[in-house]
Amino acid sequence: MPQFEQLSIVGVGLLGGSIALAARERRVAGTIVGIGRSPAKLANLVSQGMLDRVATSLADGVATADLVIVATPVDLVAETVADVRKSAPASCLITDVGSTKHDIVAQVVASSMGSHGQFVGSHPLAGDHRSGAEFSRANLFVGRTVVVTPDASSDAEAVSQICEFWKALGARVVEMSPAEHDQAVALTSHLPHAVASALASATPAEVRQLVATGWSDTTRVAAGDAALWRQIFLANRPQVLAALDQFNQHLALLRAAIEAGDGAKLEQLLAEGKRIRDAVGN
Amino acid sequence: MPQFEQLSIVGVGLLGGSIALAARERRVAGTIVGIGRSPAKLANLVSQGMLDRVATSLADGVATADLVIVATPVDLVAETVADVRKSAPASCLITDVGSTKHDIVAQVVASSMGSHGQFVGSHPLAGDHRSGAEFSRANLFVGRTVVVTPDASSDAEAVSQICEFWKALGARVVEMSPAEHDQAVALTSHLPHAVASALASATPAEVRQLVATGWSDTTRVAAGDAALWRQIFLANRPQVLAALDQFNQHLALLRAAIEAGDGAKLEQLLAEGKRIRDAVGN
Repeated sequence: MPQFEQLSIVGVGLLGGSIALAARERRVAGTIVGIGRSPAKLANLVSQGMLDRVATSLADGVATADLVIVATPVDLVAETVADVRKSAPASCLITDVGSTKHDIVAQVVASSMGSHGQFVGSHPLAGDHRSGAEFSRANLFVGRTVVVTPDASSDAEAVSQICEFWKALGARVVEMSPAEHDQAVALTSHLPHAVASALASATPAEVRQLVATGWSDTTRVAAGDAALWRQIFLANRPQVLAALDQFNQHLALLRAAIEAGDGAKLEQLLAEGKRIRDAVGN
Repeated sequence: MPQFEQLSIVGVGLLGGSIALAARERRVAGTIVGIGRSPAKLANLVSQGMLDRVATSLADGVATADLVIVATPVDLVAETVADVRKSAPASCLITDVGSTKHDIVAQVVASSMGSHGQFVGSHPLAGDHRSGAEFSRANLFVGRTVVVTPDASSDAEAVSQICEFWKALGARVVEMSPAEHDQAVALTSHLPHAVASALASATPAEVRQLVATGWSDTTRVAAGDAALWRQIFLANRPQVLAALDQFNQHLALLRAAIEAGDGAKLEQLLAEGKRIRDAVGN
């Protein structure tokens, strides 16, 4: 028997589509319903077998759901969850896949008086620099980390079920408060994006013929969608600014050692970066 | 008939070893001689078939060479080339694989009065974050760029032969002056390394469990050898400092847009980084 009789996914892009494929392959859900604004695109996903049926109205799509995944852009998550709660059964679990958590969880909690459904925030650290359901894959979450972010108001059973859901898709689950999550991803995800983008922008056309794998690796994430990253940076502004300041301090130390010609200090700083990079691996 | 009757390689690490393997496979050289300080290690490379014979004295190893590749650490290149010139035949071509070019070429030119051999600097944009002859491979240069850096004193025929040599190993050759080269690689190689290192160092242990592919890509080059990179940064100091300043300006623009909550400006900056990254590809 699947963990959830009906799984409804709001926003079937790369993440929503991969959740559908993984839930199907691993028999985690009975019926899988896709909800979105483009009936033609969704109908195509039904004919491919990714979805069982589609709904273009949120109310229709979640009315009999046991689990709803809100996989919309991050700035629409809180209001979409609020809308889901108006139409979903009282026992329905709700989670999201947003890259920031504090503001989303706070808004959902603030709007949840008397409404239906148990919301627990999630952030799967999985993806691709390409977006769109056509790049979905059933193994997207295998071996990846999903952060689940309960707060003081979360129902323990709901938290446990959401954690089990992600594990069933092959992920490793880490629980953190929404604030801890946002501080951590500012350093591990948002800062690298800002740095990669500035690095790409600092590379004038005339030197690009000398680009090799080092530059390509270091700038790779800068190919991410600009509108999506704009939202992420703004949704996590204080943490991103703090992360940038932390980075700038380290880069300033390196610059000072180079400027002073202080080889010993320079090597010590580079060895520290290498130690941390080696400890993470891959 | 091979392009060179005898190829001698001074310093048989990842690059020197890969040149030996590629020259053998592509029949670019008749006899391949390795020169280094560790007879046991070199003898092992002979028994593996990478080298035909070894020499622990530079004079012996280059006495009958047609082409000498100096693949020592960058701070030893100029003096090694000067030593090669004392013992090599007058017609012998000499190149190197150093990551910086202006100082090396200037020192070689300054020391070349009346000595033998035609030196033309090279920088293969190929490598690995691992070092050592055991990671050598015959296809290391295939499809990669090698920058050849003649100056006003270079012999045109020598430049042409060095270019042909790299092309014969499968590389794409770009000619640039030593100064142009150093300015370009400061932006495309040295700056990414500094940024990756600072980014790794700015990541505290407690958040590393949330590291995903974005962080891993952006910091990958920070795993490079600290002693080697110390030399590269110091050998190219003014250009690296200028590249860091250029980067800092772009990052400051991003930071200001985030701090001001200026979504339109932020998206414009991110789109510019994406445009450049997409143009390079892979």
